[in-house]
Amino acid sequence: MPETKDISKISREIKLAFKYDVRFTTGTFDAENPTLESALAGVFSDELGTPAPRRVLFVLEKTVLDHFPDIPGKIAAYSAERLEAILTEPAIVETFEGGERLKHPYTVKDILELINQYNLDRHAVVGIIGGGAFLDAIGLAASLAHRGLRQLRVPTTVLSQCDSGVGVKTGVNMFGKKNYIGTFAPPAAVIDDFDFLDTLERRDWNAGIPEAFKVAMIKDSVFFQWLLDAAPKLAGRDRAAMESLIKRCATIHLDHIATSGDPFETGSARPLDFGHWLAHKLETVTAGKIRHGEAVALGLLVDSLYAVEKGLLDKKHFDEMRSAFETLGIPTDDGALVPSRPLVEAALEEFREHLGGEIHITLPSGLGDKIEATSMDVPLILDSIKRLKNG
Amino acid sequence: MPETKDISKISREIKLAFKYDVRFTTGTFDAENPTLESALAGVFSDELGTPAPRRVLFVLEKTVLDHFPDIPGKIAAYSAERLEAILTEPAIVETFEGGERLKHPYTVKDILELINQYNLDRHAVVGIIGGGAFLDAIGLAASLAHRGLRQLRVPTTVLSQCDSGVGVKTGVNMFGKKNYIGTFAPPAAVIDDFDFLDTLERRDWNAGIPEAFKVAMIKDSVFFQWLLDAAPKLAGRDRAAMESLIKRCATIHLDHIATSGDPFETGSARPLDFGHWLAHKLETVTAGKIRHGEAVALGLLVDSLYAVEKGLLDKKHFDEMRSAFETLGIPTDDGALVPSRPLVEAALEEFREHLGGEIHITLPSGLGDKIEATSMDVPLILDSIKRLKNG
Repeated sequence: MPETKDISKISREIKLAFKYDVRFTTGTFDAENPTLESALAGVFSDELGTPAPRRVLFVLEKTVLDHFPDIPGKIAAYSAERLEAILTEPAIVETFEGGERLKHPYTVKDILELINQYNLDRHAVVGIIGGGAFLDAIGLAASLAHRGLRQLRVPTTVLSQCDSGVGVKTGVNMFGKKNYIGTFAPPAAVIDDFDFLDTLERRDWNAGIPEAFKVAMIKDSVFFQWLLDAAPKLAGRDRAAMESLIKRCATIHLDHIATSGDPFETGSARPLDFGHWLAHKLETVTAGKIRHGEAVALGLLVDSLYAVEKGLLDKKHFDEMRSAFETLGIPTDDGALVPSRPLVEAALEEFREHLGGEIHITLPSGLGDKIEATSMDVPLILDSIKRLKNG
Repeated sequence: MPETKDISKISREIKLAFKYDVRFTTGTFDAENPTLESALAGVFSDELGTPAPRRVLFVLEKTVLDHFPDIPGKIAAYSAERLEAILTEPAIVETFEGGERLKHPYTVKDILELINQYNLDRHAVVGIIGGGAFLDAIGLAASLAHRGLRQLRVPTTVLSQCDSGVGVKTGVNMFGKKNYIGTFAPPAAVIDDFDFLDTLERRDWNAGIPEAFKVAMIKDSVFFQWLLDAAPKLAGRDRAAMESLIKRCATIHLDHIATSGDPFETGSARPLDFGHWLAHKLETVTAGKIRHGEAVALGLLVDSLYAVEKGLLDKKHFDEMRSAFETLGIPTDDGALVPSRPLVEAALEEFREHLGGEIHITLPSGLGDKIEATSMDVPLILDSIKRLKNG
C-alpha cells in the first residue's frame, strides 16, 4: 500500500442536509384534518413499505392539557382512524409538568427515562406539544437518546410558533446560565396550530410580538409597516392578524437559518439575537418575573435608540415601534431596567461568552437591514436607557 | 403581505459542511514539531487577526499521564514557544480519571463543570487526549457546553486512532445500554500520534487490529491481503507496519463518513458496524472483561463463516482471517461465545434497537464488498458459532 505509507494528513469534508416542513393549521388532532398524518408520513417516508417499527410518543405540556383536556383522547382516535397505515402501534401520549423546573438537566434525565421505558429507537418520533421552554428541554432529551430520535414539534405559544419552535436549537440552563447545555437538532417536522393561541394569557399573546418586530426591523421593512398597521387588531386579539404575523415571522426565521450560511452558529455573529444581550440579563436579574418577549421588547427599544444615536436608524422608526408596543400593552419600561454601568457591562460580557469569541451585537441599519457591531459604547448605552425611561 | 396570508406550509433545506483534518505524527508536544500549532491555527483560522479570546483546555486521561508524566510540562513549554501568536492565554491542562466509570452521565457533568469553571466559550478548543471511551465521554460534554465547543482529538490507542477517534460520534452508556446517549459532533481537528502506541499493553495493541480486518473485508481487498502479509510483523510489534495499518484504516473510515451519504446515520444501515451485533452482546455479557476489539474479532469470524454458508464469501478468506488472528494472538474463541438461541436473538434485537428501524446486518459479499442483510437465519448463526468453536 505505497499510497498510504507516507501521508501525513487526511482532509475530508462532511456534508449534511436537513429538510423539514413547517405546517400551519388548526384542529391538528381532529380526525378530519390530514395535517398530522401528512407530517408523519413525510417523516417516515424513507421507511414506508418496510416492516420497521414506526412509533410516536407525544409528550404534552401539563398547562396545555389543562386548557385542552381532550387532546389525549383525540390523539388516540386520530391514531386509530388515520395513522394505522403509518404506525405499527397506536400513538402513545404522556403528560409532563412545565414551569420553572423545566429547563434543568433533571428534565432531560426524566425524559430519557421515559424514552427508554418505551424502548423507542432512533426512527421513532417524539411529538412535543408545548411552549418554547418545553420544546427546548424535551427536544434536548430527544436529540440525545440513541444520538437523536426524530422530533415533531407542535409549539403552542406565539413566541415558539414564530421563533424558537420552528428552529434548530434545544437547551436547558446549567450553572445559572441560560441554555448552557444544548444541541443543534433540526426537527423532522413542525406543526403551528393556531387554536392553541386562544387560551393564552394576554401577556403570553403579547410576548411573541416583539420577536416579530425584531426580524422586521433588521430584515423586512414591509413587515415592519404591516406590524404598525396591525397593532390595533393584534391588541384586540384578532386571530387572523396573529396568524399572518406568525407565518411571516416563522418564514423569515427559517429562511435565515437555511440561507445564512451558518445554521449551527459556528461564527460569533447571530443576527436573530438582535436586542437579546440586554434581554437575557433582564430575565436573569428579575429571576424570570419578566417574560422573555417582554425583555426582548426592552432590549429592542434600547438597541434601536442606541442605533438612532449612532446615526444608523431614523428616530421615526424607534418612535413607531414604541408606540406600537404601547398600543399592544407591551411594557416599555421595567424596574430592572436601570442605567447602571455594572449591569450593562455584565450583560455584554455574558452575551459575548454565550455567543463565543469576540462580541457581536446586531443593530438595525436603516429599516430592514442590519450591521454587526464588534464594540459597544457603554456611556451611549447608558444614555439610551436614560432617554427611554424619560420617555 | 398577501404572499404570506394563505401559505399552509414552509419547506426548507438546511445545508451544513464540516471540514477537518486527521494529522499523523510523533512527538506532538515536542517544541520542534509544528503539527499541533498547525492544527490549532486551522481551527482558529476564521478568527485570527481578531481580538477574540482563543483558548485551549487539554483534558488528559490519567493512564496516559502515568506513561507520559512529562506531557503537562511539554504542553506548557509548547504553548509558550509556539502558540503565543495563536492563543490569548497559555494552554490549560487537566487530568481526568479513565476506567469503567468513564462512560457514564456523571462524567459528562464533571467535565461540564470543568468547562464552566474556566468560562470557556464556544470558540474555545477542548483538546482530548486518551483512548476511545475517554474521547467518547469527554467529547459528549464538549459537544453540549454552549451547544458545542471545538474538539481537538488526540486518540492514544490503536483502536481509537483507526476508528472512533477520527469519526463524528460521542456517547456514554445509560440504562445499561451501550452509548444510549450521545451526539454527532465532528471534531475540529484530529492528531494521531504514534508514540502513544509504544506503551500499550499487548492486548490493547492487538485490539485495534480486528477493526482493520473489518473495513478491509467489506471495502478493500488490497488492504486485506496486506494485513495477511503484515500479520507476523504486527505480532512482533513492528511500529512501521502498525502506522501503515492505522493510516489506511483511518482513511477508509473517514472516506466512508464523508461519502456514504449518511454521515449522521439517519438510515438503518451501518456498514462500519460489520461484526458488531454479536460483539456488543459479548461485551455486555462478559461485563467488559473482553475488550471491544476482541469481541469484534469474534463477531467478524462468526459473520464471515455465516457469509461462507450463505455462499457470499469464499471460505479461504475466513480461514486467512482466523489464521492471521492466531498469528497475532487475538483470541478466536471465548467462554461467552456459545451457540445459544436466546443469546443470539437478544443480540440481534438489541442491535436492531441500537441502529433503529428494521434490522440491517452488513455481511461481506466477495472480498472487499458487502451486502446489507435485512433478515438473519438464526439456526445458521448457531451453526456458524458451533463450527467456529470446533475449529
